[in-house]
Amino acid sequence: MSNKILIVGGVAGGASAAARLRRLDENAEIVMFERGAYISFANCGLPYYIGETIKERSKLMVQTPENLKARFNIDVRINSEVIEVDTQAKKVRVNSADQGTYEESYDYLILSPGAKPIKPPIPGIDSEFIFTVRNIPDTDRIKSYVDQEGTRSAIVIGGGFIGIEMAESLRERGLDVSLIEAAPHILAPFDSEMVAFAEKEMTDHGVKLVLGDGVEAFHEKEQGIEVSLNSGLHLSADLVILAIGVTPDTGFIKSSGIELGARGHIIVGEYMQTNCDGVYAVGDAVETTDLDGQRTTVPLAGPANKQGRIAADNISGLNTKYKGTQGTSIIKVFGLTGASTGFNERTLQRMNIPYRTIYVHPNSHAGYYPGAKAIAMKLLFNDEGKILGAQAFGSEGVDKRIDVIATVLRLKGTVDDLAELELAYAPPFSSAKDPVNMAGYLAQNVLSGQLDIFTVKDLETLQPEEQILLDVRTVEEYEQGHIDEAVHIPVDELRERLNELDKDKEVYAYCGVGIRGYIAARILKQNGFKVRNLTGGYRTYDMSKYSPK
Amino acid sequence: MSNKILIVGGVAGGASAAARLRRLDENAEIVMFERGAYISFANCGLPYYIGETIKERSKLMVQTPENLKARFNIDVRINSEVIEVDTQAKKVRVNSADQGTYEESYDYLILSPGAKPIKPPIPGIDSEFIFTVRNIPDTDRIKSYVDQEGTRSAIVIGGGFIGIEMAESLRERGLDVSLIEAAPHILAPFDSEMVAFAEKEMTDHGVKLVLGDGVEAFHEKEQGIEVSLNSGLHLSADLVILAIGVTPDTGFIKSSGIELGARGHIIVGEYMQTNCDGVYAVGDAVETTDLDGQRTTVPLAGPANKQGRIAADNISGLNTKYKGTQGTSIIKVFGLTGASTGFNERTLQRMNIPYRTIYVHPNSHAGYYPGAKAIAMKLLFNDEGKILGAQAFGSEGVDKRIDVIATVLRLKGTVDDLAELELAYAPPFSSAKDPVNMAGYLAQNVLSGQLDIFTVKDLETLQPEEQILLDVRTVEEYEQGHIDEAVHIPVDELRERLNELDKDKEVYAYCGVGIRGYIAARILKQNGFKVRNLTGGYRTYDMSKYSPK
Repeated sequence: MSNKILIVGGVAGGASAAARLRRLDENAEIVMFERGAYISFANCGLPYYIGETIKERSKLMVQTPENLKARFNIDVRINSEVIEVDTQAKKVRVNSADQGTYEESYDYLILSPGAKPIKPPIPGIDSEFIFTVRNIPDTDRIKSYVDQEGTRSAIVIGGGFIGIEMAESLRERGLDVSLIEAAPHILAPFDSEMVAFAEKEMTDHGVKLVLGDGVEAFHEKEQGIEVSLNSGLHLSADLVILAIGVTPDTGFIKSSGIELGARGHIIVGEYMQTNCDGVYAVGDAVETTDLDGQRTTVPLAGPANKQGRIAADNISGLNTKYKGTQGTSIIKVFGLTGASTGFNERTLQRMNIPYRTIYVHPNSHAGYYPGAKAIAMKLLFNDEGKILGAQAFGSEGVDKRIDVIATVLRLKGTVDDLAELELAYAPPFSSAKDPVNMAGYLAQNVLSGQLDIFTVKDLETLQPEEQILLDVRTVEEYEQGHIDEAVHIPVDELRERLNELDKDKEVYAYCGVGIRGYIAARILKQNGFKVRNLTGGYRTYDMSKYSPK
Repeated sequence: MSNKILIVGGVAGGASAAARLRRLDENAEIVMFERGAYISFANCGLPYYIGETIKERSKLMVQTPENLKARFNIDVRINSEVIEVDTQAKKVRVNSADQGTYEESYDYLILSPGAKPIKPPIPGIDSEFIFTVRNIPDTDRIKSYVDQEGTRSAIVIGGGFIGIEMAESLRERGLDVSLIEAAPHILAPFDSEMVAFAEKEMTDHGVKLVLGDGVEAFHEKEQGIEVSLNSGLHLSADLVILAIGVTPDTGFIKSSGIELGARGHIIVGEYMQTNCDGVYAVGDAVETTDLDGQRTTVPLAGPANKQGRIAADNISGLNTKYKGTQGTSIIKVFGLTGASTGFNERTLQRMNIPYRTIYVHPNSHAGYYPGAKAIAMKLLFNDEGKILGAQAFGSEGVDKRIDVIATVLRLKGTVDDLAELELAYAPPFSSAKDPVNMAGYLAQNVLSGQLDIFTVKDLETLQPEEQILLDVRTVEEYEQGHIDEAVHIPVDELRERLNELDKDKEVYAYCGVGIRGYIAARILKQNGFKVRNLTGGYRTYDMSKYSPK
């Protein structure tokens, strides 16, 4: 007897599961329910279509119901919302635009309902000038509004991935764009001194950033809409994009007996199974684990697609495990790329995990070959050298370096592995010592005690009676800007000018990016000084002080 | 008492060792001998300066003797050739342009003499129109000759990295360029069906390739030089670049007692130590091991720089090991990038290591986002899923994918790891399932028996009485070109047309890149057919048949 498998949701995880199921079982009956009119669309591409980077709407349709039928023999039912799941009787209740309400039984059920934009109960939130970005109809609505001649300005609320991508896309369309974020900084996966690169890039491209401020109310005006903020600020625009986050779209299973987490996510095990017999769940709506087995939710397309495949494997008798998520993510911010993997400092502090921090600013490829651009990299690791997380910003080669570190992190490697990796080098692509190697070397130096470091935060604690802040850059660099109170001795003169420094005080050295400071620290340490070097140097200091205001 | 350390050779490994030594030991006496006038130059950048991609000669000078003195207190002696090493008395004999011959004692000696271009005893090889590319003076000579008004054509002999980079650079300067390679294909790290991408790119950019032919003699002409080949072919040009390979420049230690390999390489252990007390060696001149402990030589800048650092560590009491090389390399070929890591098929066959081969042709990033380009990837692995090697060609994102696979290979991961990696995805950078994931999935399918595959070579063995060759692409694709004798049934019609296929014969299916063929194979297998799919599809077939002639 062949299996009957129902799939709820036809995007990302659901579509991935359907195709894999068919490849594994030619005889299964596979039915896919999609509430909307479109399946398997390019949800990550929606902002770029609005911004006209993607020019043809048809490109957003990765699969059609007809394709899925012809190639995979999937019974795709669009405009069909599953409104109830009976896990005892193993059947679902469907509300179909064409056929009304009916029931369908299953042997196996895969839930891939996704997540929907959060719409908090703020006065005026139901205005027709407020848009969310989840699906094709949303996208069509926003684009047709932006295409209208009179549309000149937009306010984006929320500085997450979708908010940033929408702000960029609308700016690319020539609109005046403001972005409001309630937290002190945008893009939560990054720590604040790193995300400053993104904030500066957005400001440089004319996006007005309003940080640390929340929405109190929306007021429709004769033309467009006004947003009143907690600070008392009022902003007006022709439209508002609401992108403050998503919540799992799991209301329809509240009474099904399927276990949900505190915020409504479907709890799944390593086979993507729920607590109910034959029921699996995948994608943005599930709560799974990180690499250390801690419960987590990561609403990203990569994990969703992998999970869909794994659910299909297990239904078909292949014993495939989902080994956890590590939160690898990436975003284009105008000409800049930001990417991260693993934990950031905020998360490590919240979880009480001890960590060390280093920064490096290597070139994307050999400096003598045209087009090399600095990459700002941050690496978090523990005393055993285990990699806990990494973040990077730059305009070239950021994706490659974070992917390599994500790979080492996943395979439970250490900073020694980063140092030893043999990566592909020719001048157009890297340096003989790749940026990832450089981060590994620095981490090794810190762990072995070759180098004591300090971070920008430590500057606040310096006492002139006990510490000397020492700038070892060139005269030109020093004169262009330096940290207050810093004594200045260029590294190449340091050996001859040691007597200018008081050996009873601890030297806090810094240079441009940390390399000359490291050399200075080694000279000083071996000459009997107590010394630390500012990791990331003046460049990291400068970004730490950046404010878009 | 402070250590006295002599370094022979001031480029790559030698320079890397000197800087690290000083950081570790402020009091050591460090003397660097360089035979030529330049230290620490950008040897990987030389072709690009000749090609004027790098416009300023000064960019090639990464370090000067003055810099190294000021920053690292290194006693750099240029134009000083070490001509003899006495490992008993621990001293070297130096031939200095300024000071004549003298001796210098050492506590530790680091040999980083590099490798020199091979110049076989071919008649006419000493012609002034024949150039080799090793150092700054070589580069100056070639560039000034190319800069002359009448220089219109060049012959490059040797299709290795330097030969290809020189051919491209001279072509960029507008010269007529022919490249002669004695082997059947250029770029030995790649297997022939993969390197066809490079050969096509070179031919498309006007480089004439002469493969499988060797030089018999050179004849100077009134203008320029004629090259006579074994085939009887004669080619003439204004200059010849000789780049058939390198040999370790170790003549000066032949009688020192330092152990050399069969081809003159210095044998080193995992601490970069030689068999002689206090003597270390690094870079292109050494024979080290691969990741499995087999002896190997890899004259590349990445390993050289790492080895220099490791030698310095061990001299300074840090117990750092070189854990072997994996031959990761990369080359730009006009608009194309080729990269590889680990072993290729030729090497695996020579070493009698059993392996499996798959090909994938995924997009560099989401197909719906502009600029996506296909990447041709080849993965070699064994029955346990261990990764043995990978090769890739494409115009975007090749370096990233090979670096990720190189990382998994180094950490002794498997194809399961490739499938499970959580890499950074947003539409401009990748797909929800990255090309590396795709290669992992396919390898898993092959190992688990979900899919039996065949390669282009197997086509030769097909018998019409026993096998059916089946093209499952669209009518348009089939009509644009197909493999002889192929039956044609588009995959989307296959379920309805199964009766057209003889179940007593084994079906050899193929599509464009292998994906539809895989689906067809699954349909057929579950309907009782014996079936295989052409890995890499028609695209790999097409490149396998490519000939630059």
